[in-house]
Amino acid sequence: MLASKREYDVVIVGGGPAGLAAGIYTARARLSSLLIEKMMAGGWIVNAGLVENYPGFPQGITGSELAQSMEQQAAKFGLEMLTAGVTGLELKGKRKVVKTTEGDITAKAVIIAGGSDRVKLGVPGEEGFTGRGVAYCAICDGAFYRDLPVAVIGGSNVAINEALELCKFASKVTVIHRRQELRATKILQERAFAEPKIEFLWNTVVEAIEGEEVVKSLRLRNVLTGEKSVLKISGIFVAVGFKPGTDYLKGVLSLDANGAIITNEKMETSVPGIFAAGDIRSNSIRQTIAAAGDGAVAAIYAGRFIAG
Amino acid sequence: MLASKREYDVVIVGGGPAGLAAGIYTARARLSSLLIEKMMAGGWIVNAGLVENYPGFPQGITGSELAQSMEQQAAKFGLEMLTAGVTGLELKGKRKVVKTTEGDITAKAVIIAGGSDRVKLGVPGEEGFTGRGVAYCAICDGAFYRDLPVAVIGGSNVAINEALELCKFASKVTVIHRRQELRATKILQERAFAEPKIEFLWNTVVEAIEGEEVVKSLRLRNVLTGEKSVLKISGIFVAVGFKPGTDYLKGVLSLDANGAIITNEKMETSVPGIFAAGDIRSNSIRQTIAAAGDGAVAAIYAGRFIAG
Repeated sequence: MLASKREYDVVIVGGGPAGLAAGIYTARARLSSLLIEKMMAGGWIVNAGLVENYPGFPQGITGSELAQSMEQQAAKFGLEMLTAGVTGLELKGKRKVVKTTEGDITAKAVIIAGGSDRVKLGVPGEEGFTGRGVAYCAICDGAFYRDLPVAVIGGSNVAINEALELCKFASKVTVIHRRQELRATKILQERAFAEPKIEFLWNTVVEAIEGEEVVKSLRLRNVLTGEKSVLKISGIFVAVGFKPGTDYLKGVLSLDANGAIITNEKMETSVPGIFAAGDIRSNSIRQTIAAAGDGAVAAIYAGRFIAG
Repeated sequence: MLASKREYDVVIVGGGPAGLAAGIYTARARLSSLLIEKMMAGGWIVNAGLVENYPGFPQGITGSELAQSMEQQAAKFGLEMLTAGVTGLELKGKRKVVKTTEGDITAKAVIIAGGSDRVKLGVPGEEGFTGRGVAYCAICDGAFYRDLPVAVIGGSNVAINEALELCKFASKVTVIHRRQELRATKILQERAFAEPKIEFLWNTVVEAIEGEEVVKSLRLRNVLTGEKSVLKISGIFVAVGFKPGTDYLKGVLSLDANGAIITNEKMETSVPGIFAAGDIRSNSIRQTIAAAGDGAVAAIYAGRFIAG
């Protein structure tokens, strides 16, 4: 879709739940609003199967249905959407200029809601089995693996937290790490080592994810000995990192060590009139409901910023 | 309902959207969780008619349906609920003791989600017409008064912001204030005075709200002259203040000047292991989606606190 004009009250970058919620609020408040998304609206959640923990849907809702509903709701209130990549953000007096692959767009306030990419393993089967055994979030999907064996890939705090979370559900949790020791903090390591459900495979990488309808096993390789093996599991939780989409914001906004945008509880960034919402924020819990809440908060404070 | 035990991982105080969302997350994460609510679950939203801006419901959903759905969802994951008033919160080493009208409950972490009361006018018709012409939030309900005349009661920043917001929809906005001048900041006053849709009635109070199916008029009295009058309007937005339910927390947590709980973006309060979510927080935007997001954030960080 194209933008109907070149100047808006609010430009929202990113069309996941944070951006769509922001758009519902800004458009309903009659601020002229443009949402820019490079792919399709919905963001990461489109890949989710059943979402059980978005409050308001006791039977759960699929990620794609939820995304579609939000998009429809935003459109109903008059949110415009532009399909384009965002390549830069410049300050021009009090205005913000959003550089896109479809040209420059000027705004009084900008809400950055571009999300974070899960770093993928990049092995055969990962793409195809996503949502059918391949997962990226224990809080989201752990409950679907009750009494089943699962694997966690990674050795960071995030990976060990995922493994500990999964112990509440899974029959067994195998942590597969390419190194000989964990990067996670001591206290998390101690808890993981004390947990009878957790086993470790050191110096090991995943070479392929295999199954039929759903995941059944992993093909593994020991990086020291070269020895190959097969591990039967029902779920694989990839926890090798997140990459917030903030390359174009370096030098513009304050970012944390991982590149996520630092905000306060009003979703204000280090630059007045620029707000951030959802998984692109530092300390985001990476949950749809929190992203949507962030979006609404950013929208309200953006409105107040514009009102002066 | 009664509590099945006296010690929980997490106690949640308040059963509105923030508390229910927190409960969905803590219970689903298999933390033993008790929600304490003095009345019925749902909180303020139960009084809302159609909620148009909760992302995920493009056709809108009534406040009571949304509350019921959240309650059902939380119960499904095993959240226990106790009907009781909360009278105190004490620290006992690392544990927190929640004092209730049904006895003491101990928790490893507490999430305070007790909301804020809208201060009411206390005049005839206010209770009966709530949701049928009597409203307390322009962002929530302004869009329902397109091309209709409305009144705003109050003279604070909140009241003037409500009036300015309503100008986007209403045909005319009459600000009714019991004093001769506004308490709102200069810049807001200037904007309001410059807005052709806004008229002011000074030194005036509402004595009654009248109508049939819906509100039709206000009975007014000038407090200086005693003169009475009738103003025909379709909506009355009461904006005379909020009262966070934090009397029992004075001296326990850091509160702002209005008594709201100060948190950071992780929903952490000034006391480790005590979190706050929703309208009881300082700088809350008082929207259901943000309250639910807060609840999820508080739940995740409460879980991490308990895990150590």
